[in-house]
Amino acid sequence: MTDTIEAQSNKAGKTVSESAAETTVVMLPSDANPLGNVFGGMILKHVDLIAGLVAKRHAGHANIVTASMDSMTFSKPVYIGNALILKARLNYVKRSSMEVEVDIEAEDLNKSQKVYTGTAYVSLVALDEKGKPIEVPKLILQNKEEEERYAEGESRMQIRLDNRKKRKIGV
Amino acid sequence: MTDTIEAQSNKAGKTVSESAAETTVVMLPSDANPLGNVFGGMILKHVDLIAGLVAKRHAGHANIVTASMDSMTFSKPVYIGNALILKARLNYVKRSSMEVEVDIEAEDLNKSQKVYTGTAYVSLVALDEKGKPIEVPKLILQNKEEEERYAEGESRMQIRLDNRKKRKIGV
Amino acid sequence: MTDTIEAQSNKAGKTVSESAAETTVVMLPSDANPLGNVFGGMILKHVDLIAGLVAKRHAGHANIVTASMDSMTFSKPVYIGNALILKARLNYVKRSSMEVEVDIEAEDLNKSQKVYTGTAYVSLVALDEKGKPIEVPKLILQNKEEEERYAEGESRMQIRLDNRKKRKIGV
Amino acid sequence: MTDTIEAQSNKAGKTVSESAAETTVVMLPSDANPLGNVFGGMILKHVDLIAGLVAKRHAGHANIVTASMDSMTFSKPVYIGNALILKARLNYVKRSSMEVEVDIEAEDLNKSQKVYTGTAYVSLVALDEKGKPIEVPKLILQNKEEEERYAEGESRMQIRLDNRKKRKIGV
Amino acid sequence: MTDTIEAQSNKAGKTVSESAAETTVVMLPSDANPLGNVFGGMILKHVDLIAGLVAKRHAGHANIVTASMDSMTFSKPVYIGNALILKARLNYVKRSSMEVEVDIEAEDLNKSQKVYTGTAYVSLVALDEKGKPIEVPKLILQNKEEEERYAEGESRMQIRLDNRKKRKIGV
Amino acid sequence: MTDTIEAQSNKAGKTVSESAAETTVVMLPSDANPLGNVFGGMILKHVDLIAGLVAKRHAGHANIVTASMDSMTFSKPVYIGNALILKARLNYVKRSSMEVEVDIEAEDLNKSQKVYTGTAYVSLVALDEKGKPIEVPKLILQNKEEEERYAEGESRMQIRLDNRKKRKIGV
Repeated sequence: MTDTIEAQSNKAGKTVSESAAETTVVMLPSDANPLGNVFGGMILKHVDLIAGLVAKRHAGHANIVTASMDSMTFSKPVYIGNALILKARLNYVKRSSMEVEVDIEAEDLNKSQKVYTGTAYVSLVALDEKGKPIEVPKLILQNKEEEERYAEGESRMQIRLDNRKKRKIGV
Repeated sequence: MTDTIEAQSNKAGKTVSESAAETTVVMLPSDANPLGNVFGGMILKHVDLIAGLVAKRHAGHANIVTASMDSMTFSKPVYIGNALILKARLNYVKRSSMEVEVDIEAEDLNKSQKVYTGTAYVSLVALDEKGKPIEVPKLILQNKEEEERYAEGESRMQIRLDNRKKRKIGV
Repeated sequence: MTDTIEAQSNKAGKTVSESAAETTVVMLPSDANPLGNVFGGMILKHVDLIAGLVAKRHAGHANIVTASMDSMTFSKPVYIGNALILKARLNYVKRSSMEVEVDIEAEDLNKSQKVYTGTAYVSLVALDEKGKPIEVPKLILQNKEEEERYAEGESRMQIRLDNRKKRKIGV
Repeated sequence: MTDTIEAQSNKAGKTVSESAAETTVVMLPSDANPLGNVFGGMILKHVDLIAGLVAKRHAGHANIVTASMDSMTFSKPVYIGNALILKARLNYVKRSSMEVEVDIEAEDLNKSQKVYTGTAYVSLVALDEKGKPIEVPKLILQNKEEEERYAEGESRMQIRLDNRKKRKIGV
Repeated sequence: MTDTIEAQSNKAGKTVSESAAETTVVMLPSDANPLGNVFGGMILKHVDLIAGLVAKRHAGHANIVTASMDSMTFSKPVYIGNALILKARLNYVKRSSMEVEVDIEAEDLNKSQKVYTGTAYVSLVALDEKGKPIEVPKLILQNKEEEERYAEGESRMQIRLDNRKKRKIGV
Repeated sequence: MTDTIEAQSNKAGKTVSESAAETTVVMLPSDANPLGNVFGGMILKHVDLIAGLVAKRHAGHANIVTASMDSMTFSKPVYIGNALILKARLNYVKRSSMEVEVDIEAEDLNKSQKVYTGTAYVSLVALDEKGKPIEVPKLILQNKEEEERYAEGESRMQIRLDNRKKRKIGV
């Protein structure tokens, strides 16, 4: 019976807030590059993990793989001892494809200051057990901001498809 | 000048929500014990990390060390692929001592079900650079619930002190 | 035939020393918190691992899960480069439940000094493959000290059960 | 005297092959996501590490930070037990900025088959000890292919600068 | 049909260069011992991983286990921030046994200097799914140097067998 | 005054048992190679860590580096869920050089069976802060077995020196 309810809610879609996630990770010496900073790849690892979590929350039983990560700028260094704060939410969903936006802040815990570090757009795909794409619940939009994000996500998804065809430059 | 402002805000105290933190961590195969479950010690590691983060947010420049962790019951196993959700907040502050409560849930991402896993009470101390205890901002209580938590935290802190004297049993 | 012998030894119980374990772990920079100390949660991870090892040695084929960890006080900081010495032994066994005591020392290898850091009481349960509690060998007590530890373990186990009922405070 | 020689070689620039690097990493169970695949963020971590290595080889004494990573598509899943092969080389250098291209292959060691997995373009900056950008050796181009890569790198760098101004979409 | 082709190529043997591998790993703070150097055991871990990769490339479907590692001298310390460069190649193959040579260099990325650090000889065995030794492709030698390495590998393999019989000293 | 006492005990030497160490490590999924076994390099990492610990206990304030590891045979595979038991002790000490023997067992915790896995001979050197070899306390031998081990260690040390000169084969 739980399955039936879940199946229905899948048909009916899920809201953005149902899958949104937040994580706060203190950067430890084991996350450092030889300079003592946190290296960019470590941040991207956390970005990918939380994007996968959000997509999985939305998709339920399906398997989730990362299809692409858009260009990301690291505007400020993140230091050991900082808290890395990642806020992740779905912008756009179409059939088996999802775009998750991850906003990244670094918090200097000594000075109680948060610094915006960057935004990542991760696109993910839901697969069934044989690796075939599988449809996920629709994204229920509940306000103007979510509708705008959806439209922007749709246009980025189109750009990704165009770039994949051109394959000329990696941007 | 930033220092002056900060010093003033320290005098005035900080609210519970200023330091509260939430983290959501997907449990990976590298977190598993040989059974394929997440072992209890791995959960305690995350509990201690976020408790330290909350205490550090409240205390600012001071160094934070864990003084004790109260008895913790693991009511349900946590599985690889689950999201571990930790919500941490200050209950009680006195001079250099802080009690952080960490509520632990495990989320089965296939079934979209969250299960309460346990509550940890961590007491931490703020130290200056020479390792001497240092006073931290007062905890500003903003509602009835926070006042009740404060009273309970105070009584637990008293029990810890009593137990340390008796040292008869570890509970 | 090995099975028969083992089954017999299970009936007859096992001594404390048959399952006791000791581990010595050098604390590396990758175990550090941002202060350069070893964080409490890392110590608890090692405590849980060796408690599980002792319980598994006693229980043999069964699966072992941590049921609870009693209140633990970290009386001294542990530093990078210290050796963490954990000595773990069964105090008490009843049906599927076991209490393991873990005594923790930190050794300063430069000064050849060992410092008592704390004692953890971990209670664990043996489960069969379906997750049902399963009876483990009795604990054979061989001297007065082991009998006293058994009695204390029994009284702590009772307190844990009482606390679980009350659930008022986490101590 | 070594310094003098090095200083001269810096003036004269360095070739692409002087800093190019290759790494082959067997994907272990500890690199897995809960599906048992390698998660995208783990690959990005390795991409960032080798891009930093190439930039550091070119820049010598300077500190290297990742400024941005271009959009990356993961065309195929990478499995535990696969070898991840990363080939990294400088495409473009201007003052303190460098673009490193990382070509990624996954090798199925059972079938002796290599699969192209993606290409990452990472831009990095050389900083002095105070965090100020510092000029790095020129990139000596030795053949037609390197000249074409340089031109493409220059055009991508321009797109990155334009996008940073527009900041409209993350692609 | 792919299987048939592969089976044929197995009969015909494989060259040294078909399985040779190179890896370059930047040493991070998480690889350090308490002195801040890379500890020898961490280097041996990387040596064993790449030796296993080379043997697996040569053996294809078989499982690979390390049988022994010859005496290894660490002539120079490796520092955090150095690049560890490992070049691994088959010297000798007989039935299910393989000897892989791993040459180790440490590169000081600040000074652009590479230092020879040591050579490891690792012998590995190919096993089928039941753990029985299984024959691997012959090693096709393509020049004088490879023939000399083969002869030296054969003599070291003989010494290993002799030592195993004597078991008097571990050298 | 503590220094004076320590200096005296250094002159007088230290016994074998003063520095001997034992460690028991449960092998977790994060220690596995793609076959699900523990890979040899992971065992060597633990061997090197405990050898360094024993040497450091004997040498006190000095820095310890691994000079070489003798040939090691892995006679049996170690599985995830096994306990790896390492017993380490000094065999031989001369000026700044020390030989530590590490005996390795793997314990199958389901079957309560221990299997001898191999013996490693690690030679280590004590250095002062400038990296110069520094004399360590003499090794006080307390029984016939320790005297025999000392003699064997001395002869292995001689073979290592000879091999280093010949440098013909790595065994």
